[in-house]
Amino acid sequence: MDSFIEHHSNSSGLYLKVNKILHSERSKYQEILVFENEFFGKVLVLDNLVMTTTKDEFIYHEMLAHVSLRSHPNPKNILIIGGGDGGTLREVLKYPINKVLLVEIDEKVIEVSKKFFSELSSSFNDKRVEVIIMDAIKWVKNESRKFDVILIDSTDPIKIAEGLISEEFLFNLKKLVFENSIVCMQSESPFYHIDTIRTIYQRFKKIFSNAYIYTAPIPTYPGGYWSFTISFQSLEYPKIRNYYFIEDLKFYHDEMYDAVFKIPKFLKDAIE
Amino acid sequence: MDSFIEHHSNSSGLYLKVNKILHSERSKYQEILVFENEFFGKVLVLDNLVMTTTKDEFIYHEMLAHVSLRSHPNPKNILIIGGGDGGTLREVLKYPINKVLLVEIDEKVIEVSKKFFSELSSSFNDKRVEVIIMDAIKWVKNESRKFDVILIDSTDPIKIAEGLISEEFLFNLKKLVFENSIVCMQSESPFYHIDTIRTIYQRFKKIFSNAYIYTAPIPTYPGGYWSFTISFQSLEYPKIRNYYFIEDLKFYHDEMYDAVFKIPKFLKDAIE
Repeated sequence: MDSFIEHHSNSSGLYLKVNKILHSERSKYQEILVFENEFFGKVLVLDNLVMTTTKDEFIYHEMLAHVSLRSHPNPKNILIIGGGDGGTLREVLKYPINKVLLVEIDEKVIEVSKKFFSELSSSFNDKRVEVIIMDAIKWVKNESRKFDVILIDSTDPIKIAEGLISEEFLFNLKKLVFENSIVCMQSESPFYHIDTIRTIYQRFKKIFSNAYIYTAPIPTYPGGYWSFTISFQSLEYPKIRNYYFIEDLKFYHDEMYDAVFKIPKFLKDAIE
Repeated sequence: MDSFIEHHSNSSGLYLKVNKILHSERSKYQEILVFENEFFGKVLVLDNLVMTTTKDEFIYHEMLAHVSLRSHPNPKNILIIGGGDGGTLREVLKYPINKVLLVEIDEKVIEVSKKFFSELSSSFNDKRVEVIIMDAIKWVKNESRKFDVILIDSTDPIKIAEGLISEEFLFNLKKLVFENSIVCMQSESPFYHIDTIRTIYQRFKKIFSNAYIYTAPIPTYPGGYWSFTISFQSLEYPKIRNYYFIEDLKFYHDEMYDAVFKIPKFLKDAIE
């Protein structure tokens, strides 16, 4: 294998040269592949979909974590669903939180990240972190702790992650939120998955009272452009509610907070 | 040829299946290729770089034209350098302008667009349009008309378009601006061409008094993410200065005007 193509549609995709395969295994849940690419560095692939790369991981992880954590006045207890590479965890831990619980279905993803993506996975060493290896869909049924911020950092919601956008799962998740909790989910590409975005948006609005979409450019994701769906519940609308100082960000800064919610007209029109 | 890869670096790129080659020629200046792709529709390729596709052309053309035209209080005379496909022209003509002059080096691009991209090139039929087929670098030396808005809609500034970012060209272009004219140039990918962006930004600032960068997601351009560099000269800063009603936009809307200037931290840091 000297090249990798992630097919975004039947006729378009991302081409990456494979300089060296670092790891390849079939876990209980998915195919896990790690390879080296000259431009993007190490590339983590799950079921043929690029999850993260050394070069551009900061964008996805900063944008999933910071828009949500900035929106809450005092985030102390955080839940991450998925996120086994540790990148979202790393960003969350930059705040003075008490605890973050990460529920990942596939422990092999954490193992692989620990081996090949230490810049992401060193976050697992933090004492504020608790990890549960379990399907979040089952876990949520018997959990009763509540969280200030919930981040759904899943693979694409097909196959193993499909249930994470089901109404049943989201209703169960609602048991775990306070009235002013933030819930945020990665919600796919505006160019390739508009129906998925609409579904997530509509379900968030129904179950968590309100929903907003924001976007970010991510070069290794389909179309190079990604969406996130967020609910502010009783907090009602996007607003920075804490300005805790964080030094080492490469993408997010507070001036862009309002801006990322100004989504293109075709996307606005498509979700309503 | 059943597939096309645009190489963005030695090891990454855009993969497109070629359903049918519609046109292929070597003009005096470049290789021109048009093919059909299931997802993106018709694809126009110049010297192996995707210039535009039926599906996503609206983003580039709207974002180059409307951010600039919104910024001027009363745009009447417009100059487009390059833009032979007619897409930027189409957007400019949505305003009550008096005249738009388009200076394109390669008449074959206009011919090919007229044949395969009528949704872009029908704009050439408008009576307010004047076309000059000439290298803009030579043309600008002997021109004396002035323009309210100048849009540089070039191919990537390597090879034939390299001179369009030279200080000499920009100094010559300055003869054609009023004190409050807007000058805007497509300025490449923040992920792949940061040195080019910095060069354009610095030269704009030096020659046209000030410069700002804004961005847009464009799935068929390198990294799926594109930059534009704009100078407001005596108008000083980004601001909507006319609200002329335009019905048929798919990407741009006025709520996003300020937002597009909130560029990522790594890009802000890199250009200064």
